[in-house]
Amino acid sequence: MTRPPAAAGGRSAPRPRGRRPAGEDTRGNIVAAAGSEFAAHGYAGASLRGIARRAGVDPALLHHYWDGKAELFAETMQVHGVSPSALIARVVDGPRDRVGERAARSFLSMWDRPEQRPRFVAMLRSAVTDDESARALREFLASEIFGPIVLALDDGEPSMEPVDRRVRGGLAASQLLGMALMRYVIQLPEVADSEPEDLVRHLAPTMQRYLAP
Amino acid sequence: MTRPPAAAGGRSAPRPRGRRPAGEDTRGNIVAAAGSEFAAHGYAGASLRGIARRAGVDPALLHHYWDGKAELFAETMQVHGVSPSALIARVVDGPRDRVGERAARSFLSMWDRPEQRPRFVAMLRSAVTDDESARALREFLASEIFGPIVLALDDGEPSMEPVDRRVRGGLAASQLLGMALMRYVIQLPEVADSEPEDLVRHLAPTMQRYLAP
Repeated sequence: MTRPPAAAGGRSAPRPRGRRPAGEDTRGNIVAAAGSEFAAHGYAGASLRGIARRAGVDPALLHHYWDGKAELFAETMQVHGVSPSALIARVVDGPRDRVGERAARSFLSMWDRPEQRPRFVAMLRSAVTDDESARALREFLASEIFGPIVLALDDGEPSMEPVDRRVRGGLAASQLLGMALMRYVIQLPEVADSEPEDLVRHLAPTMQRYLAP
Repeated sequence: MTRPPAAAGGRSAPRPRGRRPAGEDTRGNIVAAAGSEFAAHGYAGASLRGIARRAGVDPALLHHYWDGKAELFAETMQVHGVSPSALIARVVDGPRDRVGERAARSFLSMWDRPEQRPRFVAMLRSAVTDDESARALREFLASEIFGPIVLALDDGEPSMEPVDRRVRGGLAASQLLGMALMRYVIQLPEVADSEPEDLVRHLAPTMQRYLAP
């Protein structure tokens, strides 16, 4: 989702349903309103309706721009161009014995994009220093990323205990976010200077054991 | 290293070598001066002599209180009661096939102590939001914690490539710090609510593969 340059007058976008004309400003206003709403109510407690009210737009307009709450939240987290559902599909779809490799590669390639790094660092800074951001991030990670990944992988494997599933998602999150912390924020040279595919090779067995043992 | 209650008059401590009487204030002043010196020069660039000069004390006084730069840095990072050398010994000493288990247990039990958690969170916040803190932390982790651990474990196994060693230390750091990030800061329920020994069981094979494959 690359932003087109804002046109003078802001009316170049096709007119959507809703009370107000939708230009880039409207879209940006909704994202800002969503950020406030997630901060106030957490990810789980926030609703698209409440965000629309806060932004002063028709709720239908939100559905026009985003597939749902997860996509909108990802944008407030400044993750552009990668939707949660696409990320989940990249990890889940394919041979089960290569889940770990796909998980490591999908997350690293998302964060490694030069325009994405500063946004990711900003997101992590916010989550580490602000309790409300931390709450929104943890609810998002659990309900929209790692929960669905583990659930999809366990489909048809009813022997897995639900509680075990949850821990597995948390372990996967700890390794991936920990790698991001070390590579992009703390910049430990050992991992900051490594080629992405070298890291994928090292991380793949760990992710495999956590996600699809 | 529990702090004794400060005595009125501040002269209860035995008088050490050096220019100034050493009370709790002097010790605290040195820790504060060390924090400034590490911020200004990074971990690698800071010296005990420079810290002593900044604190206005004799360098010998620093050796009176701390075993060396690593111990002093750990205290500026508010890690009390666990010296880097003791932590390394806990991981390295013992059967090689249980290195991963000892590593996971040593770090988790250090951070899980109730008085330690807020300090660890403060340290991580500082490193994530401030470039100088990040630099000091990464140099400390590389040269005083994970570097020495991997080096000690590879002793007598000359087939290990030095470059591979460095990556392995970075991987171990990414998993352990990532778990701390998720458990104490983001507080993902999956791992924040888990019993430490359950996490040790899950993390042990990962740490074993990174540290002593």
